[in-house]
Amino acid sequence: MSERDPVTVIGLGLMGEALAGAFLGAGHPTTVWNRTAAKADRLRAQGALVADSVADAVAASPLVVVCVSDYTAVHGLLDPLGPVLYDRVLVNLTSGTSQSARETAGWVAERGGTYLDGAILAVPQAIGTAEAVILFSGPRPAFDRHEPALRSLGPGMTHLGDDHGLSSLYDVAVLSLMWNILNGFLHGTALLGAAGVPATAFAPVAKTLIETVAGWVTGYAGQIDDGAYPALDSTIDTHLAAMEHLIDESVAARVDVELPRFIEALAARAVAAGRGGDGYAALIEQFRKPAEA
Amino acid sequence: MSERDPVTVIGLGLMGEALAGAFLGAGHPTTVWNRTAAKADRLRAQGALVADSVADAVAASPLVVVCVSDYTAVHGLLDPLGPVLYDRVLVNLTSGTSQSARETAGWVAERGGTYLDGAILAVPQAIGTAEAVILFSGPRPAFDRHEPALRSLGPGMTHLGDDHGLSSLYDVAVLSLMWNILNGFLHGTALLGAAGVPATAFAPVAKTLIETVAGWVTGYAGQIDDGAYPALDSTIDTHLAAMEHLIDESVAARVDVELPRFIEALAARAVAAGRGGDGYAALIEQFRKPAEA
Ligand SMILES: NC(=O)c1ccc[n+]([C@@H]2O[C@H](COP(=O)([O-])OP(=O)(O)OC[C@H]3O[C@@H](n4cnc5c(N)ncnc54)[C@H](OP(=O)(O)O)[C@@H]3O)[C@@H](O)[C@H]2O)c1
Ligand SMILES: NC(=O)c1ccc[n+]([C@@H]2O[C@H](COP(=O)([O-])OP(=O)(O)OC[C@H]3O[C@@H](n4cnc5c(N)ncnc54)[C@H](OP(=O)(O)O)[C@@H]3O)[C@@H](O)[C@H]2O)c1
Repeated sequence: MSERDPVTVIGLGLMGEALAGAFLGAGHPTTVWNRTAAKADRLRAQGALVADSVADAVAASPLVVVCVSDYTAVHGLLDPLGPVLYDRVLVNLTSGTSQSARETAGWVAERGGTYLDGAILAVPQAIGTAEAVILFSGPRPAFDRHEPALRSLGPGMTHLGDDHGLSSLYDVAVLSLMWNILNGFLHGTALLGAAGVPATAFAPVAKTLIETVAGWVTGYAGQIDDGAYPALDSTIDTHLAAMEHLIDESVAARVDVELPRFIEALAARAVAAGRGGDGYAALIEQFRKPAEA
Repeated sequence: MSERDPVTVIGLGLMGEALAGAFLGAGHPTTVWNRTAAKADRLRAQGALVADSVADAVAASPLVVVCVSDYTAVHGLLDPLGPVLYDRVLVNLTSGTSQSARETAGWVAERGGTYLDGAILAVPQAIGTAEAVILFSGPRPAFDRHEPALRSLGPGMTHLGDDHGLSSLYDVAVLSLMWNILNGFLHGTALLGAAGVPATAFAPVAKTLIETVAGWVTGYAGQIDDGAYPALDSTIDTHLAAMEHLIDESVAARVDVELPRFIEALAARAVAAGRGGDGYAALIEQFRKPAEA
């Protein structure tokens, strides 16, 4: 008999197969189920037990990981189940919103189970490696109890807090940060490209700047939590003047001006709110409210 | 007699004083001039020669660095000068647009001088240290000739190319990237803050993500220069679905939705242009044109 806890994985798409493979690789008896049964074949060959039904799959292990396309699919699979969820820890790694995570937590609790939501910040190939980051939210004791098994997926398994919505919120916050960085890079690349500069010439300068700014967020975060935004170097007034240069250059180069205008309008609102002499972190006040307000 | 080349610094504001101090510290005979003469006192005490007029200051050294508030001030100082600019290398570190840099280059050339434009990506305290990055553009031989003196300002003195507009363009491109990163961080902080998460809890996750994305720009730049954007992990279609989550979460949390909507609209335009199956770098095509077009 294995010393490792049994684990069930429901959903064997690109991600689910990677998850099940990592549990198997770490020596956990692993039961799998997928709507299209043939997708279980490779895992069976690696030693997985293939359940005949979702109910059998849930019954097989105290820890049940679900990873399907969306919450509609999750509920299509789980809603027909009877008392089989009792005493199970259901870990849902399907992407969704914080609201759907909180609703599903209530639904699982009504059936006597415990719910953890998770957000995977990794591609399937990274699962089981040091690059895999998965963020979990929900009751800490359930996470602690199953952390040894979950760490089969990689060392970067992080519990955020009890609120089941947190993993989805962090997920979109982190994705948003990624899109903003890439948009900034692409806008700069377009601007310099109009003057004949190749993207590969800008990239090393951009990389250095991005790494520099990574070092600032901790300090800005401290200011935000303190509610005071002293300008350590540039004030928002100074930024605003440079933002106008960015707009002028973008207009002259005939590249996108919408992103520069958004950046400028936001800073102008902060100046209008009396924050011109403060540092950049004071813009948090603008992001805290809908722009219409 | 010193072995080091003499240098002149015109403009002794926060930045000009730091520049002159670094030249002096590196052993260059340094002549200074400032409109408000008293600002030269500290530098005189450190060994600087204080010129009585702009013309005397320009005459004193083959390398003349100007760092005043803006281009209007630059022209107010230089336009009255006669043939004294002949054979000088004028390095203008005043912030401005690429157009004003190119115009000033022509103006200096008419007077028989050589023009280098520069953009300082550093605070005055960093001048002379490894943190100081200054980007130069204009004729390479002039930069090479004076690089030994310019390196008094720090090791990060970088020549971008012959086009005098490049330093201003890189300056705003890099600042824009910085604003985009910070806006992404602040938006995520506001979103998580609405769920009770302190900024200091989000900061380490954000820092890791920013550093990760820094590692991607070289690869994306290669795709852009190649004009082909294969999706190595996520397609723009997949990003678009997650962007809709970001909008939903931002609406639900009653934080700014304008930034998420900008991000989503841009990706939607790329999908409409047939790029849904490509990777994120394909958005360069959207940034290359004014949004109105
Ligand atoms: N792939 C990534 O890089 C990545 C990264 C982070 C997060 N995620 C998230 O992980 C989840 C799964 O992604 P994936 O890449 O594995 O997707 P995928 O390869 O498209 O697989 C989708 C899975 O969902 C199942 N499914 C869909 N609708 C179903 C339904 N109505 N009933 C039962 N099963 C259903 C599919 O079953 P069939 O095989 O029968 O169609 C398949 O197992 C998604 O929420 C995704 O956002 C993925
Ligand atoms: N400080 C930074 O962190 C930083 C970083 C990067 C780039 N820069 C750029 O560096 C330049 C100088 O910045 P700074 O921080 O040194 O500014 P500052 O402390 O405000 O100094 C401004 C300087 O410009 C002079 N000046 C202004 N108008 C003039 C005029 N009409 N005629 C003659 N002189 C005039 C001032 O002379 P008086 O003393 O007589 O007023 C003073 O020497 C700016 O273009 C700025 O964007 C600064």
